[in-house]
Amino acid sequence: MPRYKLTIEYNGTAYCGWQRQKNGMSVQETVEIALKAFCSEDVTLFGAGRTDAGVHATGQVAHVDIPKLWRTDTVRDALNARLREEGGVAILSAELVPDHFDARFSARKRHYLYRILNRRPPPSILKGQVWWCWKALDVEAMDRAAKHLLGTHDFNTFRSVNCQAKSPVRTLERLDVVRGPGDEVHIHASAQSFLHNQIRSFAGSLKLVGEHRWSDGDLVAALESRDRKRCGPVAPPDGLYLTRVDYAAPGDPPLRSGYGHADEIGDGGVGEE
Amino acid sequence: MPRYKLTIEYNGTAYCGWQRQKNGMSVQETVEIALKAFCSEDVTLFGAGRTDAGVHATGQVAHVDIPKLWRTDTVRDALNARLREEGGVAILSAELVPDHFDARFSARKRHYLYRILNRRPPPSILKGQVWWCWKALDVEAMDRAAKHLLGTHDFNTFRSVNCQAKSPVRTLERLDVVRGPGDEVHIHASAQSFLHNQIRSFAGSLKLVGEHRWSDGDLVAALESRDRKRCGPVAPPDGLYLTRVDYAAPGDPPLRSGYGHADEIGDGGVGEE
Repeated sequence: MPRYKLTIEYNGTAYCGWQRQKNGMSVQETVEIALKAFCSEDVTLFGAGRTDAGVHATGQVAHVDIPKLWRTDTVRDALNARLREEGGVAILSAELVPDHFDARFSARKRHYLYRILNRRPPPSILKGQVWWCWKALDVEAMDRAAKHLLGTHDFNTFRSVNCQAKSPVRTLERLDVVRGPGDEVHIHASAQSFLHNQIRSFAGSLKLVGEHRWSDGDLVAALESRDRKRCGPVAPPDGLYLTRVDYAAPGDPPLRSGYGHADEIGDGGVGEE
Repeated sequence: MPRYKLTIEYNGTAYCGWQRQKNGMSVQETVEIALKAFCSEDVTLFGAGRTDAGVHATGQVAHVDIPKLWRTDTVRDALNARLREEGGVAILSAELVPDHFDARFSARKRHYLYRILNRRPPPSILKGQVWWCWKALDVEAMDRAAKHLLGTHDFNTFRSVNCQAKSPVRTLERLDVVRGPGDEVHIHASAQSFLHNQIRSFAGSLKLVGEHRWSDGDLVAALESRDRKRCGPVAPPDGLYLTRVDYAAPGDPPLRSGYGHADEIGDGGVGEE
């Protein structure tokens, strides 16, 4: 059966998260229902990252096998025609990919954005789409502190107690804190994979740095303690966006050994947030 | 009684518009309820522009007389504490103004933004906050055509049949069409005052130009006909934002005669959209 790679945008507010669940409508199920209406068959969608309830995406990636070969534009448009009534999910693109392409296990890098609205008045237009932090944040201090988290560490401090990953070791490739448009502060995070709630744990702890309640040293001590209780308050899902997932281009060399971690393939925590 | 100038942001989606109405909750009433809880008295809020249902604001201005003198930050924060539960309205600032300040009649210029999402997939995160136009738009052609609308004209073609302004003559000071972030196209419009649905009528007609269904000449002919039936389909409220209202600074000369129109003071159509 032809395999399609879908790039998906969604407003996570109304969903119980990416993954199918017994109670509540997930993004996965929403797209699977549109797929079933399109191909008249039950199909399963496999996503690159299992975002939590309330977390958004501007570039989630999923793969699906469809019984018949269709033009990619037809797949995208037919799904959108069905999703439009729902209103919270849009298919940005559909591409034909080889059978060995796996949205989750072939992913080389995941990119997330965390949006903070840093102003005294609460959000109105951006309600549910940002984390409201009303105390003025020292963005430069947050960015400096973030650099201590780069590289390969045991991130046990910064993962949910429910995280199912076997190993708490991850390699953080990017963690930048910058001013965004309006009164926004943006945290950009990139890694091959993340632990459950890792970026929201970073955001909550970096906020303490931005308010001068934590020093750089406090953040480093929290990291080195590998103690979940030393994490700052976890930031809400509202501000988190899965923005992009990178895959090897045709002809790229396979993953270098040592690039990832032994448990990343088949690890329950791959691409969680 | 001290008079306060409030700068107000709102997501118009859940409201029946700015102005109090018998059926449906308006932004005005929402803020008046918060004001009553704050001052324990009924007070009336006067807005600069009466935005329609579904239209948003990032810089609506209103004035209100409050029985007691409060610090401006206290007024802003107390109202926001009450509005936060509601979620769709935020007070960006409160300022003390002289008794002769009138949010509506003292306004020198109103600025609006119209946001179009110009891509094949429908909006998800921006649903309700943009107008979805899936055909590729020729933004340069739209901008060129827009320039024919600048200056003083009889804009009868571009106003609602329900517009209550005595005169259809207005002076358009800015109408720019530019590419925004992502796949957005932004229309920026400025004038001392607008007719009811004037910007949404512009947006709907300019879209036809952007799709090459109308030439510059068609737009000019529509303007010159002064015939409402010659207007393009009126764009939805979703994309429209009242972004700023300008007032004279202390010491500024009074409005030059000829700057506005005879009927603008006391005209039912002042600042409509």
